[in-house]
Amino acid sequence: MKKGILFVVSAPAGCGKGTILGQILKDKKFYYSVSATTRKPRPNDVDGVTYHFLDRTDFEKLIAEDAFLEHAQYCDNYYGTLKAPIEENLSQGKHVILEIEVQGAMKVRELRPDAKFIFIAPPSFEVLRQRLEHRGTETPEVIEKRVDAAKKELEMKVNYDYCIINDVLDDAIADFKSVVRAEELKIQP
Amino acid sequence: MKKGILFVVSAPAGCGKGTILGQILKDKKFYYSVSATTRKPRPNDVDGVTYHFLDRTDFEKLIAEDAFLEHAQYCDNYYGTLKAPIEENLSQGKHVILEIEVQGAMKVRELRPDAKFIFIAPPSFEVLRQRLEHRGTETPEVIEKRVDAAKKELEMKVNYDYCIINDVLDDAIADFKSVVRAEELKIQP
Repeated sequence: MKKGILFVVSAPAGCGKGTILGQILKDKKFYYSVSATTRKPRPNDVDGVTYHFLDRTDFEKLIAEDAFLEHAQYCDNYYGTLKAPIEENLSQGKHVILEIEVQGAMKVRELRPDAKFIFIAPPSFEVLRQRLEHRGTETPEVIEKRVDAAKKELEMKVNYDYCIINDVLDDAIADFKSVVRAEELKIQP
Repeated sequence: MKKGILFVVSAPAGCGKGTILGQILKDKKFYYSVSATTRKPRPNDVDGVTYHFLDRTDFEKLIAEDAFLEHAQYCDNYYGTLKAPIEENLSQGKHVILEIEVQGAMKVRELRPDAKFIFIAPPSFEVLRQRLEHRGTETPEVIEKRVDAAKKELEMKVNYDYCIINDVLDDAIADFKSVVRAEELKIQP
């Protein structure tokens, strides 16, 4: 069986990455890589769906066993990407979608140069600001911080293989599918 | 203006390359590279459309001026791809489609490593044979020669970037469009 392809996807907050991936993942040829974390589950969390919830001892044991493709600590909690489910799904011919921020993506690039890196960008920072304002969930200060963060993240775009600009959602979804299809049609050296 | 992309397309006879390209070229973002030749025009030929018809002296002068991306001789006639129209169209942001057999494609690869190489293949040699028989224009001997030639050409596939299998025509056209779109979305290093 032909192995699947690992797609690493990053986007600044507010770029519609979740909506795009939601549509893409309707196709069962994809497997969405679920992160592991030591963070306590919240009411809406489902173990194995939103995260793989692990306690600190288990997480550190897995780090020692080199079980993670990448891992990091935020706010005293570990977050990481387990290698095994990715490898299993790729072997079964499924494409794996790994959604990760830019720093994590660069770590993955070192270990998996065969992966394909997709950056999803807003059409402009002005549009990004408007979208974040439209959500109505963040304060103006947080919105400014996010726009500034997006500007920094966008500088990392050069390290990716593809950039999809999410202006019109349906076009962005079609673009994502084109990238996947083209990669499927690539001749393996 | 963003430069266009040079797509080099090869396929064994009977793979439906002409039909696929006919559909693709309806989009005015493409320019089809017309070959130059010293062959005498035939009744259906239109200068500048089927070929650029040149006399031997002019063709050889252009060879001396390094005006060709590639050229070759068949049956005492020269055939070649002029650089200038390709460069002009790429500069104007058009994608250039260069339809060429495998040997010519490999010459182009050396000079234009930035070009994208697409191989169009039949779903099987049996289907290819059926298609050639269905045309009803060739003798059984010629059909066998063409199938044998296709087998040899298919070995060259490994030197291409993408392989599109023309099983269902609409799928093959969609695949071609996906490859073009993905290349448009590629981040330039």
